[in-house]
Amino acid sequence: MGLNPHFKADLRQAWDIEGLQLGIEAGDRLQLARGITLVESQLADDRPLALDLLSRLCPKDTSRRIAVTGNPGSGKSTLIESMGQYWVDRGKSVAVLAIDPSSNVTGGSILGDKTRMEQLAHHPKAFIRPSASGGLLGGVARRSRECIALCEAAGYDIILIETVGVGQNETAVEHFVDCFLMVALPAAGDELQGIKRGIMEKADLIVVNKADGNLKKAAKQSQLQIKNALHMMQNTAAWQPVALTCSALQGEGIDALMEELAACLDLRMEPSNMTSRRLAQTLEAFESAWKQLWLQRATSHPLWAESLATCKEALMQGEWSLDQALARLRQVK
Amino acid sequence: MGLNPHFKADLRQAWDIEGLQLGIEAGDRLQLARGITLVESQLADDRPLALDLLSRLCPKDTSRRIAVTGNPGSGKSTLIESMGQYWVDRGKSVAVLAIDPSSNVTGGSILGDKTRMEQLAHHPKAFIRPSASGGLLGGVARRSRECIALCEAAGYDIILIETVGVGQNETAVEHFVDCFLMVALPAAGDELQGIKRGIMEKADLIVVNKADGNLKKAAKQSQLQIKNALHMMQNTAAWQPVALTCSALQGEGIDALMEELAACLDLRMEPSNMTSRRLAQTLEAFESAWKQLWLQRATSHPLWAESLATCKEALMQGEWSLDQALARLRQVK
Repeated sequence: MGLNPHFKADLRQAWDIEGLQLGIEAGDRLQLARGITLVESQLADDRPLALDLLSRLCPKDTSRRIAVTGNPGSGKSTLIESMGQYWVDRGKSVAVLAIDPSSNVTGGSILGDKTRMEQLAHHPKAFIRPSASGGLLGGVARRSRECIALCEAAGYDIILIETVGVGQNETAVEHFVDCFLMVALPAAGDELQGIKRGIMEKADLIVVNKADGNLKKAAKQSQLQIKNALHMMQNTAAWQPVALTCSALQGEGIDALMEELAACLDLRMEPSNMTSRRLAQTLEAFESAWKQLWLQRATSHPLWAESLATCKEALMQGEWSLDQALARLRQVK
Repeated sequence: MGLNPHFKADLRQAWDIEGLQLGIEAGDRLQLARGITLVESQLADDRPLALDLLSRLCPKDTSRRIAVTGNPGSGKSTLIESMGQYWVDRGKSVAVLAIDPSSNVTGGSILGDKTRMEQLAHHPKAFIRPSASGGLLGGVARRSRECIALCEAAGYDIILIETVGVGQNETAVEHFVDCFLMVALPAAGDELQGIKRGIMEKADLIVVNKADGNLKKAAKQSQLQIKNALHMMQNTAAWQPVALTCSALQGEGIDALMEELAACLDLRMEPSNMTSRRLAQTLEAFESAWKQLWLQRATSHPLWAESLATCKEALMQGEWSLDQALARLRQVK
């Protein structure tokens, strides 16, 4: 990590929690950035300070939270820049957070390429935060929730959460967003779309980006295919997923996308829907989180962990049937 | 349950395990049926006898196991009858098992309607077993595995497992079949296909049934839509899922379906593929089963169970955030 432990105390003393709180509540972007650094900190001593900050901030459920997912190369960042520009032009404030556990590996981050979101990054109503938590799995959901809470306390109207379409993140993200936008690419003929399993079923909107130049026709074809695929899924919800095309680069189709997105958000933000949905999301997230916590205990339970290893070995060797292995586990006290 | 406990001892004495074993190994359908009754028995005293029987039978990995799933009304039974007839006409023996936890509720069973599979049911090379385990959740996977083991010991070439497309069963079934066939219905225009989430991604073959009369055109359209949807899913496996149409009632398209099915099975039954796939399936099934077992312990852990309830209540009341609830759980010793 290259961190010098001797600097820890100094760093800690640098945190002025009340100052952070007041700054964030006043919408100070520098303080917001520092607050996010605090909640993302891996230093154990920082955690109580982060929790202190979070407990001081008043939760506001007024922000619209949108997840934007798509494979690398789908033009997510350019599209997010267009979307952000659309909102700031209409007086809305926008925060962009990125969840990308691979960003440390690839060396990429949403600000790594200086041309990405450059315009939006300089707008006073926008806040863009690349992921500082790259490479760290497991805590993605918690850190994202906390970052969202900070952005909400800072009063942002829209919070965009960019993910790279890794399964774990989508599962985490679906528990705390109001709307799920997927960015796809034009795929002509026999080319595979490469849409990851399960993601299409979570998307509220799927937009085929790069619908310009000689990809325009392929984009329309992909849109039709996606429409048909969406049509085939069982969906009895009030919102029926839509498929669109756009060119973030040329600014085409953005207005139509934003109108559909607004319609979806309007439905989701109706007070009756929102309270019950966010509660249901929290309970689902809790359900999956406590199971994770409990399963972790299995590995520290000496008898259980040992029996697990014995069972797996016997299964691999073909010595036990599945039911014999499970019978063995049931005997563990 | 209407069972008279005084009859229990008599019922038990009726089990002649060695006789069952020899009968099943000789391919005696009556003994096979009795063996299945034993492994499906809910009487605690029968379990050791069932395990004794299973341990006596030699596992043979020569049967081809095929799951057939589809919504009620998709004509699964008629199709299975056609498929069974196709195989018995070619000298293969076929066992049909049904997993339908709802059958006790709806009163249906695959033999409930006397016209269903009537021809196949009377063929000497066929064995048809309606689910006697209706309404009992949780043990579906184990009982199905055991019934398959009995049918394999009885020497059946083909084992068809019919399910009604309830999520839990598909998850159970995918761990012990070689091939997954989905039966869909023609859906014209704006009609929803009603394909359940996740199932399309598991299917090796999807056949649009009832492609006859004035549904023929709609069936072709559905086939095309399904082809496109399959195309969109990420799939790097050796077998690329196929979409077909057929009319089980008129016997059209059955030969083409059976040829595709045979091609899929041939690939799956190659010795190198089969051993590694079945081992991988067993390990996956073990992974999900031990987690189930371990999670059950959470509810019997007094402190954990109490904390879980406290957390859920506090979340529902909006008193705690998700992270506060999880922090509480982490403290449970």
